[in-house]
This record gives sequence, C-alpha cells and structure tokens, in this order.
Amino acid sequence: MAGKVFFSVSMSLDGFTAPESMDGILATPEQREQDPRLDRWVAQWRELHAWMLPLRFFRENLHLGDDGEEGRDNDIARQTYERTGAGIMGKRMFDLGERSWPEEPPFHTPVYVVTHQRRDPWKRPGGTTFHFIGDGIHRALEQARDAAGDRDVRIAGGADTILRFLNAGLIDEFTIAVSPVLFGAGSRLFDGIDASRIALEPVRSEPTARVTHLTYAVRPR
Amino acid sequence: MAGKVFFSVSMSLDGFTAPESMDGILATPEQREQDPRLDRWVAQWRELHAWMLPLRFFRENLHLGDDGEEGRDNDIARQTYERTGAGIMGKRMFDLGERSWPEEPPFHTPVYVVTHQRRDPWKRPGGTTFHFIGDGIHRALEQARDAAGDRDVRIAGGADTILRFLNAGLIDEFTIAVSPVLFGAGSRLFDGIDASRIALEPVRSEPTARVTHLTYAVRPR
Repeated sequence: MAGKVFFSVSMSLDGFTAPESMDGILATPEQREQDPRLDRWVAQWRELHAWMLPLRFFRENLHLGDDGEEGRDNDIARQTYERTGAGIMGKRMFDLGERSWPEEPPFHTPVYVVTHQRRDPWKRPGGTTFHFIGDGIHRALEQARDAAGDRDVRIAGGADTILRFLNAGLIDEFTIAVSPVLFGAGSRLFDGIDASRIALEPVRSEPTARVTHLTYAVRPR
Repeated sequence: MAGKVFFSVSMSLDGFTAPESMDGILATPEQREQDPRLDRWVAQWRELHAWMLPLRFFRENLHLGDDGEEGRDNDIARQTYERTGAGIMGKRMFDLGERSWPEEPPFHTPVYVVTHQRRDPWKRPGGTTFHFIGDGIHRALEQARDAAGDRDVRIAGGADTILRFLNAGLIDEFTIAVSPVLFGAGSRLFDGIDASRIALEPVRSEPTARVTHLTYAVRPR
C-alpha cells in the first residue's frame, strides 16, 4: 500500500516558515562573517523552531547528545521522522543545507532535490542520498514514492516547493507547528496558493507547552 | 481596576481575517445585485466564521432564534462578548456594518469609531451607541476605557485598525480562531506588523471541533 504525501513545518503566527531569504548575503565567507543580517536570520530561525531544539529526538538525530526533553513534542517530532520513507526538497533549501548540515545529514533516507542542475547522486554517511531530479515535481514524486515503499513521502521545503506540490494537488495532508512569534517578513508558506481549488479538513489540533500542532487533510474543492 | 485591551478574530490558516475588500463593489444596490464577487465575498466570510454561525449565543445575540449549538465554542463566544465593556472599530468596518447590521447591532456597548469624519453619536436600540472619534487611536482608547469600567476594551477590527493598536503597543492580549480554510487574498491580519518590537507569550490554545482558539499575551521585545 502506498504511503501519503505530506509536509510538516513550523510557521510563525503571521504565516512565515523561514526568515527573509539569505540569497546574496551568504555568497562569500567574508560576507557571512560581517553581515549582521545573518545573526538576525539565525535568531529568527531559532525562535521559529524553539519548540524543537531542546527535544531529545532532535539532539539524538543530529548527534548533539543523547540528553534532551521527552514528552509530546518529542513524540511528534520522532513520529514525523519515522513515517518518512523519502524526502523531496527544492534547490534553495538544498543549497542552504549543503552549507549547514553536518557530515551526516538528519534525513537518513533518499532525498530528491528538484533542480535544473544536473548532478550525480550525493551519498552521505548515515543513509541520506541526495538525488537531483531535472524533470519536474511529478517525476520527483514518482521516484520518492518508489523509494518510500509503504512509508510516507515528506515534502521538506522550502515554502515555494511545498506550494508547487499543494497547487498541483499532490499533498494528502500536512502539519503546521504554529510558533508564538511574529516575523513581519520572510518566506510565506501559502503565498500564491490556489485557494479556489483547495479545501482543508481538520484532522487534529494538538497544543503543547510551546506550540500548537495543526493537522489538515487536503481535499479538492 | 482597569480592564484589558484585546482583540478576538477568526483567521484563515493563511492569515486573512476578511475576504478581499468590497470597496467599489458595494457602491450601488445595482452593483450589489449584479456583482458575482459579492456572492464569493459572503461565501468566504461564512467559511471563515463557520464555527460561529450555528452557535446558540450568536443566534440569540442577533435575534435569529433561541436555538443553536451549545458547547465550548459557544462558551468562548459568550465569554468574549461578556468581558467586553466597550468596542473600537475602524471606519471601513463601521461602513460595512452600517449597511449590514440589523436594527439592533450585536455590540450592546458603546463603540468608538476611529474616523476623520465628524458625526454625532448614533444611538441604536439594545444599548449600542456609536461615537465617532476624530483625534486618533489613543483618544479613542481613553474614551473606551472610561466607558468599559472594569470590563475589557475590544478592538473589533478591521485588520488595519487592529494593526495600528498592536504596533502602538496598546494591545494586552488577543485570541485568534484559526479556521480550516485558505483564502489566498484578502485582509491580512499582521500585514505591516512591527515584528522587531512585539513578542508573544502563549496563554492558551484550545482546539474545538471546528477551529483552534489561540490566545497570546503581547509583550514588548
């Protein structure tokens, strides 16, 4: 039986899933060191994910230590990871990650990168292999489904890639961790959504100490 | 003891508290009858407030009948009404309401309308009196606080008026009912928020069958 296609992101209360783009800011190491916007970017990113950073699962998965908080947030983060048999991401998310993931990226599955750039698969320690798919989101999904087997396919991000899958009617359900923070600017998750064709069905709403996890099934309208 | 200043709105998951503006569409009765955008506006408004329309409190308050649903949503709607000693709204919300409220508007308190237009107080049956305040939001708030006594002041809307109070640091707390709907366009609640000066503290998150009620206290950053 085929798995579901889903995404799971943290979102600011005003709808952003990432701070303002660092395109052009991170171009050189010197720029990275000197530009105060980078500190701000990291601070905002940490606020958005403040619910996740102290979790035992998060720390284990990145080999930061086997300490960390247990509890419902931790269970949710672990279940999201465990249900995922393959990931899909956009090129910008990959580029940012390539500079910031550790030697062993936190996916431990095949990850399909939607890009126009041709590149051989990039195999990393710990079971993550990045495959670069030049012929569109449907083809990327087909390969991810094959790789995932009966587990689910996670559209990892960024917001623009998630939106392409949503508008193409390819997402079965999604979960948003609504963080208690306002960004004012950044990558807006639903910017450009084809609202006339997408209906949402509430599946589950689960408040924890730091965030509320909202899960919806996606239906055609 | 002075009450709090709060707002309480329904928001689509993509951040809108009203469908696209009807400015220019509702200009004449003929336009109202002919323009298909009005049907769409009303349909969207009803989707956004679908959690509220069947409630016993909502129906009672508008004299639609003394039937309707009880339960947690109903309690929350009633408590929001009962805590409110005075309201504040922007001129556009008032204009829209003036055309659509029944003879007895649903506020039953003094309501201060922030506007440049001079106009005598407009007293309606059932205890609602609209006062037109030409000298700014601080003055409107001062009068609303006086009128509210130890009850709270509700900033009723629209989104732009709520934003002015938020950015001026005048809001103590707010509640958002997150509705399971995507709008794609409309009045965005936090558009123009001064995010660098506003921190949120989660107070309460309460899922019900139809929506999740998120309550935050506003703190300076």
